Amino acid sequence: MQSFVDAQIVSLQVLDVRVPTSKDQVGSDAMHTNPDYSCAYVILKTNNDHLEGTGLTFTLGKGTDAVVQCVNAMKDLVIGKTMSQVFKDYAAFYRSLTSEPQLRWIGPEKGALHLATAAVLNAIWDLYCKCHGKPLWKVIVDMTPQQVVSLIDFRYITDALTRDEALKILTDRESTKRQREEHMLKEGFPAYTTSAGWLGYSDEKITKLCKEALEVGFTHIKIKVGNDIDDDIRRCRLIRQLIGPDRKLMVDANQRWDVDQAIQYMKRLAEFDPWWIEEPTSPDDILGHAAIAKAIAPIKVATGEMCQNRVIFKQLLQAKAMDFCQADSCRLAGPSEVITVMLMCAKFGVPVCMHAGGIGLCEYVNQLCLIDYICIAGSLENRVTEYVCHLTELFINPSVMKSSHYQCPVNPGYGCGLTPAALAEYTFPSGSYWVKECSSSNK
Amino acid sequence: MQSFVDAQIVSLQVLDVRVPTSKDQVGSDAMHTNPDYSCAYVILKTNNDHLEGTGLTFTLGKGTDAVVQCVNAMKDLVIGKTMSQVFKDYAAFYRSLTSEPQLRWIGPEKGALHLATAAVLNAIWDLYCKCHGKPLWKVIVDMTPQQVVSLIDFRYITDALTRDEALKILTDRESTKRQREEHMLKEGFPAYTTSAGWLGYSDEKITKLCKEALEVGFTHIKIKVGNDIDDDIRRCRLIRQLIGPDRKLMVDANQRWDVDQAIQYMKRLAEFDPWWIEEPTSPDDILGHAAIAKAIAPIKVATGEMCQNRVIFKQLLQAKAMDFCQADSCRLAGPSEVITVMLMCAKFGVPVCMHAGGIGLCEYVNQLCLIDYICIAGSLENRVTEYVCHLTELFINPSVMKSSHYQCPVNPGYGCGLTPAALAEYTFPSGSYWVKECSSSNK
Repeated sequence: MQSFVDAQIVSLQVLDVRVPTSKDQVGSDAMHTNPDYSCAYVILKTNNDHLEGTGLTFTLGKGTDAVVQCVNAMKDLVIGKTMSQVFKDYAAFYRSLTSEPQLRWIGPEKGALHLATAAVLNAIWDLYCKCHGKPLWKVIVDMTPQQVVSLIDFRYITDALTRDEALKILTDRESTKRQREEHMLKEGFPAYTTSAGWLGYSDEKITKLCKEALEVGFTHIKIKVGNDIDDDIRRCRLIRQLIGPDRKLMVDANQRWDVDQAIQYMKRLAEFDPWWIEEPTSPDDILGHAAIAKAIAPIKVATGEMCQNRVIFKQLLQAKAMDFCQADSCRLAGPSEVITVMLMCAKFGVPVCMHAGGIGLCEYVNQLCLIDYICIAGSLENRVTEYVCHLTELFINPSVMKSSHYQCPVNPGYGCGLTPAALAEYTFPSGSYWVKECSSSNK
Repeated sequence: MQSFVDAQIVSLQVLDVRVPTSKDQVGSDAMHTNPDYSCAYVILKTNNDHLEGTGLTFTLGKGTDAVVQCVNAMKDLVIGKTMSQVFKDYAAFYRSLTSEPQLRWIGPEKGALHLATAAVLNAIWDLYCKCHGKPLWKVIVDMTPQQVVSLIDFRYITDALTRDEALKILTDRESTKRQREEHMLKEGFPAYTTSAGWLGYSDEKITKLCKEALEVGFTHIKIKVGNDIDDDIRRCRLIRQLIGPDRKLMVDANQRWDVDQAIQYMKRLAEFDPWWIEEPTSPDDILGHAAIAKAIAPIKVATGEMCQNRVIFKQLLQAKAMDFCQADSCRLAGPSEVITVMLMCAKFGVPVCMHAGGIGLCEYVNQLCLIDYICIAGSLENRVTEYVCHLTELFINPSVMKSSHYQCPVNPGYGCGLTPAALAEYTFPSGSYWVKECSSSNK
């Protein structure tokens, strides 16, 4: 095993990277009709030429520059720090970013600012894991329960999860951790696919993609709904026919409805036996999700990709508003806030099925779901992680899918390094794609 | 009465304006220890040289540039529009900003993005009111209930307030509206002061400011707490002695506590008979506020200045988590979202006591509290609007206070134009103050 090599951050660079996905309607849904999958991409250089940390937060095009600006506002909090300084009291370092007295006004812990915090912390964890010569999941799995708990900022959550309760959850899993690690190394973590069901895809395209998904072993298929009930019924019927009665069909409304609308709409889709309805209404509406969950049972409610921080997840759990937790690795501020949410979910008995897709999310959740299974939840029951197969060519080490299972990452780091070619092409507005696009649109 | 003169927006400029208030600890509290009161300041030029709209959103220094960037991302949605186009279907225009498909990912309707939306919409309303030749409050007061309701985006709130219910609240107040308008023109709207009680002020300074406040007629005094219980007890005791048993003392924790901490802390401050505890915990924690409100009654819970949007306020009302609503005119997206919250508060019987201070907030709430009293609430019972007397010299038309009452604005517009001198001095980083500061810190 490699020993720890410390590194000091000497510079922080952040790039606005945008891929013109809106051209093919990849990623279109009821609320996001023309996304250009993008990211704010952080590069941390160190005093060691062989150690560099990279991290990102996913965005949809416009507004990425605002996230970039927020990252730049945190530079002084990061540059000069060594990894051993940061991780000596990680929770305090975390709070120095999330509660910077001037910056927190434009959050706090939400929106562009929190997305920026995620990009910075994801890069810091990437660097830290490279210092250890291990992938992120393995760094965490090799920590003691006390070490994991020391990462967590418990502010605002102690009424739902105390430090002692967190420690107990981790300690209870400790003795069987290695068995689950071996299991994951052998089998990988089960995934579901969203690739077949975007709005804007034709029946032919859906049928083709759905059949391909079944062939490689997917047992859970998700489709987008909410634009038009008749079209949704047609597509639900088509997919249910294709997958049969036993596989799971999930539907995703991307926040399209008011509370009562969601309840009425789901009564019409109930005949297709959806496993969950995802994002039925505003991600801010805890009580609304609770009302929907109560009204549409046994259909379950899933949400989380746009839930801003641990305080919202705490309440979704307290209010029994969320049956599946779909935390986002780039909206929560780095692995420690994701682990915080996983621990709360373990206490409340709610499975975590992380949100993925976009840019880099598959790579991040590939690490995080292993941590949940091995250290926290200890079970695979009702757990599937989202997988969307696109833009893998952007990554130096894209996530690896085999027989519908995420394979354990082996490379040191947190795993979201973009290739030099991708950066040269898609950095906005100076990359070759955008320069060409700009010159042709000016013609 | 002047008739409506239309105007077309031909340019949008946004400035980052920062005042170095951290030097005197003006505005310091338990969470914001060194604020430089700042704003993103929007200037809309039109095809009419005599009509220009200005609007702002308040910030604390760092991060203002990110809000500026978000404003710039909305330019295309605004430039070219005439006021009659915008106000023909204002709710649709509003949603075109709050739900822009790429931008909403970095919100939605929260954080830097929503603050930027507020700055843009505040400027648009300023322009619209100037087209009418009236101050904002008078433009709204002269609308029919139908016209007011047409301004509102009901998405995500229909489970708490329907269009018909909103219409009924406004219609019920219609026949007595003119009496309340006359009352306000004569007396003004009652205010309370926060000037005496900032953290970091000495006993002598508190005593002096408190006596001054009593002399000009203030009957409600608020102080900051949460840093140190012994110091808070000392300051509460001092102020209670100075104001006597009948005047109201309010305390403000600025989100310092966890739920159980807040309950314990307030039990210790109860002997000083605080009227409300403001921001006891995270602004995102609806269920936490509800638990605190239940535990510390009859002390009331006030919150709102950092509550991100109407969906949070809806839940605070549904959960009986907020006894006083302190919505912020620059965090909610312009007057229509503030009116939306006021209508929900009217339905749930919760008084609105708007947040002020900062830069421009006194000027904005001065308009908005009149709308609430005249058109919506119809009562002054338990209603006081915050007032903080500083930085008035920045404004062309600062709010006017007389015998502790906000006086009705008379100038056309929404009232937050900064003077050319203020812009020349404090625009960041090119203003004369910052150029000098930068050159002296480089010496």
